[in-house]
Amino acid sequence: MTLKTCVFGASGYAGIELISMLQQHPQFSLCAAYVSQHSADDGVLLRDLYPRYPYLDDLTLQAAGPEQIADAAQNMDVIFLATPHEFSHDVIPQLLAGKAKVMDLSGAFRIKNATVFEQFYGFPHLHAGLLEQAVYGLTDWHQDAIAQANLVAVPGCYPTASLLALKPVVNMLDSSVRPVINATSGVSGAGRKAALKTSLCEVSLQAYGVLGHRHLPEIESWLGAEVIFTPHLGNFKRGILATVTAKLKSGVSESDVQQAFEQAYAANTQVRLSKDFPKVDDVAHTARCDIAWKYQVSSGYIVISSAIDNLLKGAAAQALQCANLACGLDKNSGLPL
Amino acid sequence: MTLKTCVFGASGYAGIELISMLQQHPQFSLCAAYVSQHSADDGVLLRDLYPRYPYLDDLTLQAAGPEQIADAAQNMDVIFLATPHEFSHDVIPQLLAGKAKVMDLSGAFRIKNATVFEQFYGFPHLHAGLLEQAVYGLTDWHQDAIAQANLVAVPGCYPTASLLALKPVVNMLDSSVRPVINATSGVSGAGRKAALKTSLCEVSLQAYGVLGHRHLPEIESWLGAEVIFTPHLGNFKRGILATVTAKLKSGVSESDVQQAFEQAYAANTQVRLSKDFPKVDDVAHTARCDIAWKYQVSSGYIVISSAIDNLLKGAAAQALQCANLACGLDKNSGLPL
Amino acid sequence: MTLKTCVFGASGYAGIELISMLQQHPQFSLCAAYVSQHSADDGVLLRDLYPRYPYLDDLTLQAAGPEQIADAAQNMDVIFLATPHEFSHDVIPQLLAGKAKVMDLSGAFRIKNATVFEQFYGFPHLHAGLLEQAVYGLTDWHQDAIAQANLVAVPGCYPTASLLALKPVVNMLDSSVRPVINATSGVSGAGRKAALKTSLCEVSLQAYGVLGHRHLPEIESWLGAEVIFTPHLGNFKRGILATVTAKLKSGVSESDVQQAFEQAYAANTQVRLSKDFPKVDDVAHTARCDIAWKYQVSSGYIVISSAIDNLLKGAAAQALQCANLACGLDKNSGLPL
Amino acid sequence: MTLKTCVFGASGYAGIELISMLQQHPQFSLCAAYVSQHSADDGVLLRDLYPRYPYLDDLTLQAAGPEQIADAAQNMDVIFLATPHEFSHDVIPQLLAGKAKVMDLSGAFRIKNATVFEQFYGFPHLHAGLLEQAVYGLTDWHQDAIAQANLVAVPGCYPTASLLALKPVVNMLDSSVRPVINATSGVSGAGRKAALKTSLCEVSLQAYGVLGHRHLPEIESWLGAEVIFTPHLGNFKRGILATVTAKLKSGVSESDVQQAFEQAYAANTQVRLSKDFPKVDDVAHTARCDIAWKYQVSSGYIVISSAIDNLLKGAAAQALQCANLACGLDKNSGLPL
Repeated sequence: MTLKTCVFGASGYAGIELISMLQQHPQFSLCAAYVSQHSADDGVLLRDLYPRYPYLDDLTLQAAGPEQIADAAQNMDVIFLATPHEFSHDVIPQLLAGKAKVMDLSGAFRIKNATVFEQFYGFPHLHAGLLEQAVYGLTDWHQDAIAQANLVAVPGCYPTASLLALKPVVNMLDSSVRPVINATSGVSGAGRKAALKTSLCEVSLQAYGVLGHRHLPEIESWLGAEVIFTPHLGNFKRGILATVTAKLKSGVSESDVQQAFEQAYAANTQVRLSKDFPKVDDVAHTARCDIAWKYQVSSGYIVISSAIDNLLKGAAAQALQCANLACGLDKNSGLPL
Repeated sequence: MTLKTCVFGASGYAGIELISMLQQHPQFSLCAAYVSQHSADDGVLLRDLYPRYPYLDDLTLQAAGPEQIADAAQNMDVIFLATPHEFSHDVIPQLLAGKAKVMDLSGAFRIKNATVFEQFYGFPHLHAGLLEQAVYGLTDWHQDAIAQANLVAVPGCYPTASLLALKPVVNMLDSSVRPVINATSGVSGAGRKAALKTSLCEVSLQAYGVLGHRHLPEIESWLGAEVIFTPHLGNFKRGILATVTAKLKSGVSESDVQQAFEQAYAANTQVRLSKDFPKVDDVAHTARCDIAWKYQVSSGYIVISSAIDNLLKGAAAQALQCANLACGLDKNSGLPL
Repeated sequence: MTLKTCVFGASGYAGIELISMLQQHPQFSLCAAYVSQHSADDGVLLRDLYPRYPYLDDLTLQAAGPEQIADAAQNMDVIFLATPHEFSHDVIPQLLAGKAKVMDLSGAFRIKNATVFEQFYGFPHLHAGLLEQAVYGLTDWHQDAIAQANLVAVPGCYPTASLLALKPVVNMLDSSVRPVINATSGVSGAGRKAALKTSLCEVSLQAYGVLGHRHLPEIESWLGAEVIFTPHLGNFKRGILATVTAKLKSGVSESDVQQAFEQAYAANTQVRLSKDFPKVDDVAHTARCDIAWKYQVSSGYIVISSAIDNLLKGAAAQALQCANLACGLDKNSGLPL
Repeated sequence: MTLKTCVFGASGYAGIELISMLQQHPQFSLCAAYVSQHSADDGVLLRDLYPRYPYLDDLTLQAAGPEQIADAAQNMDVIFLATPHEFSHDVIPQLLAGKAKVMDLSGAFRIKNATVFEQFYGFPHLHAGLLEQAVYGLTDWHQDAIAQANLVAVPGCYPTASLLALKPVVNMLDSSVRPVINATSGVSGAGRKAALKTSLCEVSLQAYGVLGHRHLPEIESWLGAEVIFTPHLGNFKRGILATVTAKLKSGVSESDVQQAFEQAYAANTQVRLSKDFPKVDDVAHTARCDIAWKYQVSSGYIVISSAIDNLLKGAAAQALQCANLACGLDKNSGLPL
């Protein structure tokens, strides 16, 4: 069985990771690598943009106009969108008209509440039905729903790290104290574009988006609890480290916590529980999530740290897991080793 | 007026910063730069260890044996100890026997409770009287006490960043929720010594000392409130960024907070309040602390971020401020511009 | 005596270094900090762009239109241009009409041969008389000429590092073998502007401008010998390390070389000769140049390494030295310690 | 066919790369991962040292005493030595007594001239016969000899980058001018051990081993020409960039050079010729070598830049290529994609 697939937004950092994995995937056949309609990258060999990636020898970027979109809708089995929120929002209804399942890496379909969506994304959501129907692609928790989905909203990078850390203990939380998520992302999270703030000269550890980042409502809605989320930009290329501090209900024991994490992840080869707190570089260039925690029964506070590669588990690799599930394949097929 | 001074622990990262400032200080005259008794650095020109620092032309490191300690006790006006906790603990009684005021950058005299001290430092405190008498040298808050002190326990780097962020609002804290301090330090905080964990190949953002770092009781005792403190090692040379999340009492307004920070720091040229959240590199190689905060009245949560240079405001520059105050000089005399 | 001065191109990385030094200079009084005519930075407080620098409290950037240029020409004693080559080329004749001495940090007046200039800079030079009259501001070698100059062409960063390494031995070179200059610059050399190539995600050690960089003719003309010059971009913020390999004439002894370097620099407090090969960070944030060399008499080959801060000795600090000399002040007045 | 193999020096940076590749190799079966006899790592799970690497689940490090060495000699088909020069020198005669082919990543058998060896390695070579018999494992040039070898001296990292750049044009060199090799290595080249000089705080671009590095005679003897080689330490983890400047004989045309490089590498999937000069990160974590060059016919000078991963093509991956060749397998079997 070979499934035809294409990637929109192929020249970005998540796009190239997707393409790199798809090029070697046993079942997916990559048919096109699209960039935006008037991109300067139209016609460029992908290997010239990304000499670091193997297997890109003849792959040429193509601008995606109406014709290409129509073609994708008609002929593809799986479509990946590593595109701006607005593009995904606008084009997905058309892309879903054919047989294709759509994996959307943007934020366009992650938040069910359209009012909250507009507040954080700055434009109104016009596709209420699809928004309702979209499945949130947190593969380690929503596997069954993803397997039935036509439209998967692949989670954001910070929400992935945050939710994987917190979901095992969400039912144990002391509801009077909000979990505090401090997370630091590498610069690749800001995307591949010229910007002064991502210049090597300018980057230095700094909080941003304090109390108002758009990943906050995404985390809260899929966790089912309010949190304080403070993202930071760090002086490294790839990865996210989330350090989560939460208060657990009175009476929760260390073995309750241990059991919760093991039940959640013991059978999951891509989530690794350890006693040593993870480093970002332990998971860079992998699809894994490393998690460690320490619980102080006397005070009720727990500190949980999770590390992922923001471009892989936080974007492209989770999108591929979603596509695998939606197509009935092994969840981890085609992931980097 | 010229005051005679010497530095023990002169070859370490805090030591060289002290010496660099003392060499250009208008009132202090540096008489000796000591290293530990059997150090391989005995007799070495300091400029050969630290080519980056100016004004070290003829300064030679000397091993500090009993004779040198006795000499310092007898002849110095101010003694700086950038030494291991154990050395400071053992030698301070003798150093205080003369006229000298002692600025101790170690942790030996920072925690008043000897039981807690032993628990976190691993050896018993044998000088209860001096421990009682030592003044905690947080210069922005304890100016008057430092001016009267003979023995100043210069604060640790994390406590300095944490306390400067939290002390203005300590009376407004909702006592049912612990403030959460997430802080990331540059590698120089681990000191100048060969270690695999500080190798450029090994360093990558990582939490450590979770729920048990020895700066925890120091922060709690000088803040007067329990906190959750999670330090991290970051992949940069200098600086600390502390991101503090706290819940304020019901009824606290934004202008209450504004007023509290202004009252604390408006007249302090070395603490800068800003709307933009600080970067570590904004304060590297300075004695400043940059602070920004954002308060959400609806939830009561505030996020405060403070940045310092771990070796300057977090060690050597604060020690020099302490010495200035203890000697009746301008608090900021001799600081880097 | 107070000399009035202003800086054009004040918001760039060299501009802010100039302003930072001028703010504390004992004789210069900074009257204006100009940006280009339609810059978005017009009216911005400089401290908001550069929180890291002290003493910028009330300094506001101003767009430089015809009125400001005329005012500078009429009222300033010294004008610094940290501006694009084209701007310097166009405006300098007018700026020199008054009493001001002009220190030009661009490449507009560094190359005497107008044909070569056009070939490497891409536009014709229209001011032959001024080009002839301009003095090349390599302060360690052209001190007397600078002292007489009205227009100083402040050397480029790579030429400064290269010439300081090579000039002492230029008369000993085996003329049949070109010296090879391999130099690596920190990213700040590319200036403060949004660009994909300076993104932290993209920067990684790489040669560029091979056999055709515009600093090549500058080096060759002021050295008086042909060289091979290969610049590289390195993954650090500041500094240049130049590693120079040259073949010396038969018969040159090690003490000949030693004497040549000592004669050139022994009295120069800003050039430091050492046996240890310099690190970039030894000179970052200083106006110094560190030089080490090793000579193999048997083969005639010498390797010389020089390190400077590209923004200071390679730009702003050397410009200030030039201004000091041109105004009869101490060459090193106002430099960072 | 399954071939039994083991790795000595398994806990080092080259060792873990070897093991990671061997774990997934289609023909090799990894039987043991040895560390030195009294190593603290004896009995440690390899995944605890290296959480970043997959597939290490049950692999435990073992100290290699006489018994283990005898066992390896008797039972292995291929033995990899990622060990100190002295250990390799001493143990190889015994290891070759059985059926095993030995891939030695140390410098013990790379230099045929025992006098030069002793001068650069500091101890006398006692195995003249084996030294004569050892094959230098530069897989892109010595493929046939390696296929016949029992003992392969796997090239050093700098020599690999240097030779791949220079060998295509070695017959075109102007013999009166030595090629100049300036190379910069990431810190992993210094190995996995505690050292002040590899501390993140201390590393900054710097030349070292000037005119006397032990890779100099290795380069010269396998190139067949004298060179000037200047290594540098760079502030990054992995990779080497070598920038080579050479003068070609009068009459050599650009197409001669083009032809030489194509003839050497056009059929080699692991060496990539490009017009753009390579970045270190283009090849990090790959077994590739990227090469670009620019030739100025008028002067005869050529600049060639080559980039490799120092731990892969510069060590472990080339060792694996050697083993593949020596065992009659596909040269690139088991390499990272």
